[in-house]
Order: sequence, then C-alpha cells, then structure tokens
Amino acid sequence: MREVAVVGAGMTKFGEIWEKSLRDLYVEAAMAAIDNSGVDKVDYMTIGCMSGGLFVGQEHLGSLMADYLGIKNLPASRVESACASGGLAFRHAFTEIASGMSDIVIAGGIEKMTDISGDGATYALATAADQEYEVYHGATFPGLYALMAVAYMDKYKKNCRSSLSAVSVKNHANGALNPYAQYPFKVTAEMVESSVMVADPLRILDCSPITDGAAAVVMTTVDIAKKLGKPYIKVIGSGHATDRIALHSRKDMTTLEATEVAGKKALQMAGKTIKDIDFAEVHDCFTIAEIIVTESLGFFEKGTGGDAARNGVTSREGDIPINPSGGLKSKGHPVGATGIAQIVEIYKQLTGQAEGERQLKNNPKVALAQNMGGSGGSTLVHIMEVA
Amino acid sequence: MREVAVVGAGMTKFGEIWEKSLRDLYVEAAMAAIDNSGVDKVDYMTIGCMSGGLFVGQEHLGSLMADYLGIKNLPASRVESACASGGLAFRHAFTEIASGMSDIVIAGGIEKMTDISGDGATYALATAADQEYEVYHGATFPGLYALMAVAYMDKYKKNCRSSLSAVSVKNHANGALNPYAQYPFKVTAEMVESSVMVADPLRILDCSPITDGAAAVVMTTVDIAKKLGKPYIKVIGSGHATDRIALHSRKDMTTLEATEVAGKKALQMAGKTIKDIDFAEVHDCFTIAEIIVTESLGFFEKGTGGDAARNGVTSREGDIPINPSGGLKSKGHPVGATGIAQIVEIYKQLTGQAEGERQLKNNPKVALAQNMGGSGGSTLVHIMEVA
Repeated sequence: MREVAVVGAGMTKFGEIWEKSLRDLYVEAAMAAIDNSGVDKVDYMTIGCMSGGLFVGQEHLGSLMADYLGIKNLPASRVESACASGGLAFRHAFTEIASGMSDIVIAGGIEKMTDISGDGATYALATAADQEYEVYHGATFPGLYALMAVAYMDKYKKNCRSSLSAVSVKNHANGALNPYAQYPFKVTAEMVESSVMVADPLRILDCSPITDGAAAVVMTTVDIAKKLGKPYIKVIGSGHATDRIALHSRKDMTTLEATEVAGKKALQMAGKTIKDIDFAEVHDCFTIAEIIVTESLGFFEKGTGGDAARNGVTSREGDIPINPSGGLKSKGHPVGATGIAQIVEIYKQLTGQAEGERQLKNNPKVALAQNMGGSGGSTLVHIMEVA
Repeated sequence: MREVAVVGAGMTKFGEIWEKSLRDLYVEAAMAAIDNSGVDKVDYMTIGCMSGGLFVGQEHLGSLMADYLGIKNLPASRVESACASGGLAFRHAFTEIASGMSDIVIAGGIEKMTDISGDGATYALATAADQEYEVYHGATFPGLYALMAVAYMDKYKKNCRSSLSAVSVKNHANGALNPYAQYPFKVTAEMVESSVMVADPLRILDCSPITDGAAAVVMTTVDIAKKLGKPYIKVIGSGHATDRIALHSRKDMTTLEATEVAGKKALQMAGKTIKDIDFAEVHDCFTIAEIIVTESLGFFEKGTGGDAARNGVTSREGDIPINPSGGLKSKGHPVGATGIAQIVEIYKQLTGQAEGERQLKNNPKVALAQNMGGSGGSTLVHIMEVA
C-alpha cells in the first residue's frame, strides 16, 4: 500500500451564496486546491455530495464537474454517506492512490442547500435517517439529536445546558477568526440560551446552519509530494464504520458506536493513541454531537465531554483544541463539503497556513478529522501527520 | 497492487416489484451473492444507486443496508455516476481490495424506480443530464438519444431503422431465456417498428424500461478466492472516464468518447485487445446506444455496428455475443443496479453458472462490461477472465 499525502487545499466562502451555482462553487474550490498544490495534472477526482438530486435537481456530479474544470476525460465520481459524504470522498481518494490506480487525485465536497424552497431542506436532510421507520413518523434531525441530548442528561443526571452553550460559544469564537465561515461572529452563553427553541433542549444557536459551499484537497503519494516541493501532510490512518441507521435501534443513545469503531481503526492504522492527537475537527452538527463525539473518540471519559468544553480544555488555547475552524456550528455545514472542509483546516494548521491569529499556538503535529452521517449511522475518521 | 477476484453473484428478479421495499430488494441480492460465494465475513460494502433521494426519499444507503444485512459496524458507502453507478461501485470495491484496505467486499447496486408518481421518474433520470443547459430547455433522455440516432443516420447516410430493430429483437431473444428479466419475451422487428413513438426515431421498443431491482457480487483477492474453493473469475482491467456532460458540447454525437477512453484503459491494464473479448455486456439503454457503444469500444468499424446486429454477429451464436443477459432493454434497467447486474451475468457465464440454455456455447474465457451514465458523460469498463 503506497503512502498518501495531502499537498494542497482550497474552499469557497461558506454561506447563502445565491449568486453562484453548484458548478461555480465546486470549480472555485477545486481550482483553489490545484493552485495551492502546484500540481500540473490530475488523474482522478471524487466528490462528496449528499443530495444534488433533492437540493438542486442535479446528480452525475463526476461528469459535470470534470467537464466544468476543463479536464478532458478525467475519471470522476461522486460518493455519498449523508453528512459524511466529504469524509467518504477523502477515503475513496486515499484508496485510489494507495492501490496504485491513480497518482494525483482531487477529493472534493459540495452542497448547495439554500436554493430549495419551503421545507425542502428538512425533507432532503431527513433522507439521511431511516425514511420508513423514523421520518414517516415525524422525526427530523434536530428532533433526533434532541433525543440524544435528553438521554444524555438522563443518564448522567445532569442538566447539560451550560455545556451545550459552551460548545456554541467556543466554536463561534473560533469561527469569528475564519474568513471562510458563514457566521463569523462571537456569541455568549446568554445569547445561546435565549435563542429560539428548535427541539427541546436544542435552541437555534445549538444547531449548525443550512449552507452553500464547496471544499477540495489535492492528494498524491508521499514520494510525489516530496518532489513537488510544496508543504504536505501524510494521511496515516483511515477508519470507516456504520451503526444501526435508526436511533431507536441502538442500545445506547449516548454513545456513537460508529465513531468509536472508526476512531479505533484509524488510530490503530496510524500507530497512535488518542493522546497523540494535537487537535481535532469533529462533527458538531448540533452542540450535543460535539460532546458525545469527543467522548466516543476517547478524548474524554463518558459523561465529561461537556465539562471539557465548559472548562476551556477544547478551546484554541486548551489542551486539545476541538474545531479551531469554527466547526459546523459557525463555519457552516454544506453537508457534502463538510468532511473535506475539515481536511482543509487540518492541512492549513499542520502546514502553518492558517490565516493570521487562527494558527494554533501548540505547534500541532498530528490531527484527527471525524465526519458523521445522519444521527451517527456512518462515520469516517482520518488521522494526518506533518511530513 | 493485489489481484482481485469475483467469487459470487446474486440478483433479484427485475421488474415492477411493488411488494418489496428498497431495503428488501438490496438485502435479497446481497444475501444471494454471499450464499453463492460461501464467504463467512465481509469487510466492506459499496452500493451503486443513482437517486435514492428522488425515487424513494432515502439516501445514506451504506448505513441502511449494512444495518438491514445485520453486519454490525460494517464500513459501507454509496457511490453515484448516474446510470453507471453500479460500474462505479465495482471499481470502488476493486480499489478497496487492490489497495489492501479490505479483503472481502460486497459491490452492490440498487434502484427502486416504480414507486414514484406522475412524471417523477423522467425528472429523476434527467438529473443525469446537464440540468441548467439541457433539462431546463426540455431535454429528456429519449430525446437526447434520439438526437444521437439522427446524427448517426445523417453521418453515415443510412436509415438505421432495421439495425435499431435488430438490437431490440436480439436482446429480447436473450432476455426471454433469463429468469431474472423484467420483460422475458421475444419481439419481432414488426412489433418494434409499429410500437408507439417516443422520440423520433426511437419507439418504445427501442427504450429500456423503468425498473425496480438489485444486484450484488462478492469480491476478494485472488489468493483468498483460491482458498475458498468456489468458482471465481479475475478482474484484469478497469477503465473509467468522463466526457462533456451535455450532448451539445461534444464534437461528435456519433462517438462516445468516455467509452472509447475507458475501453482503451481497461484493455491496456488487462494486456488484451478487443479481439480477445469473447462476449460483452454493454449499456443498451436505447437501441442506438448499443450500436454506438460497440463501435466506440472497437468491436466494429464506425458506422457498421448496426450491420453487425442485423447480420447476427452479436447474437448468442454470433462471433461476439453482446448482452446475452437480455441487456437493459429486456432484462430491465434499475439504473443503480445495472452495472453490477452486468458483472453478475459475466460471473455466471465465465463460471458456467448461467441458467440452462442461456450458457454461451463459445466457451468464453474473457468478457467485458461497459456501463454508462447519462448520454455518455461517464463510463466504466471492466474486463474479467476465467481463473
């Protein structure tokens, strides 16, 4: 198996971007990644997208995007694992290179979510849940994560309202520094706790937004990366797992088993323990998700992930910075792009290319990305190291 | 790169299967493939599906199908390249194994197309074309392929009506023998030519149907396949390419460039020429497609693919049998499953497991599968050989 590297990264501004189309956004991100990497050819492209069909009436993104990038006959594909589609594209690109099938690969992600009218986005996102056993009966994603939050509070006998707020406050503080973030402003715990209720106990400032955006990275072998002479990082671990798709089928709603399993696999492949990770980008689609994810990955004991957020352990200056990009909460969550945007952040931070004061001060060497589909039905975890 | 084998295959009956759900169909096909292969574990699964979102409101098929197959925490993904989604799943499984990431992989395909009401299927299928530059202006797939047929007739100065009919007659004759076919009956040229006009010159018996169905194959390394002691075939070539997505952007509407490029790549990787191929399953979504595809792959000179069909060269007893399964035309075309169903046919024919008189008499050793998305915007070609 050949060693794989990331040699360049790019993304669009995340937000409500009505003046650019699906193809405009993707091409902008992919061209930025190509420019950043300095490669002069591409052998393969894989694109994470959750539902081009429902959001904008466009599937077949491999063909469309290769065409609009102007790379003649490029083999190009689209992969989907709901909100983990970006992470899946990264793994797909990894195996293309590791296998020897392709040398230089673009792994991209895209979602254009704000063009759909009415409750279309809620319907489209719900296709990540079990349609017949959850959605037909009224479940929505804020509802499913609210159930997880209630189960968590019940199990650990604590009202975690202040922990949820701490996650939102921290991620907005990080996102306020990120020029690509959809909501680059700070919030206070008071603002979070007086924001409109969506699904008790989750308020609107506990929820990631509906977002347009694209992200891309250029990947190749470590051998080729060395010759390119640009900064690169090594991909040293890849873990992928699923769980029962419906929340009600799981033994324990306060653990994310797919995250646990994928995290262990990635660490084992990398020959690392969770203590070796210097910072992480994780899937904070709702504030409760970040708390449970950081516990399931093993950063914190069960029931203490919220304390870590409240006590500043996960802040930019803390022991283990979580979501220095601003996370899904502040940076935005164009579902198919999110997993790749996490890698963009890791590439920038590990190569010293994060903008201005965003650059982490703990001189990070090893980072982890965790990207999750649905209510945790699928998870991809990747571990990267400075070259 | 590790050598890859197919060690088992299964599929559902294709047709209007209203009594079985999306998950029922997929699990039935995957279990049939597992039973056929004799494997006692699975490490990875990849599923081709064009638009679970638009057809049945269900994305996130990796998680859903791993769950309903009962394989705990199985890493599982969904891939999409419009009607070439099945071929893409096969390639994705190939690289998972070739890279050393996984040992035993299910490559599956599924589409449930008949539950959608009104003109929903036409809308969903049109997402494989260029939404903004073709579909908004009224293009449909029968219309796009009709344009190709008209361009073909104009270029070669012949009325190819009898050639189109010959393709339909041949594929229905083959499908009539296939217990899994949606329309297992023979048709005559007169029936084709008096059937209702869809998009001039294409009549309804020139068009593949709307279909529910699933197919799956089990793949592993050649080394493991040997130890399993069941019949297996080797995957010796994989080619993947795209073309301009919109028909009007292409220099020549009578050549399928992605098929040409993917075919050459697959043959080169396999160390074979087109003359080494003993039979092929190709993407006859419309009768004109089979004619142009067989020319673009190099089986026949440009402008003569129709003559080959009329003269019996591509029949079961001809020099180069094309679509012995019945093809998309008679067997049916559940778009995400089609590429895998082609591999199911090749596995059966190369291992002598085709049902009854369906088994080809030319003792085939090498076979080719060509699976195409949209109007040829993407193509996957795979070449397999008896062990």
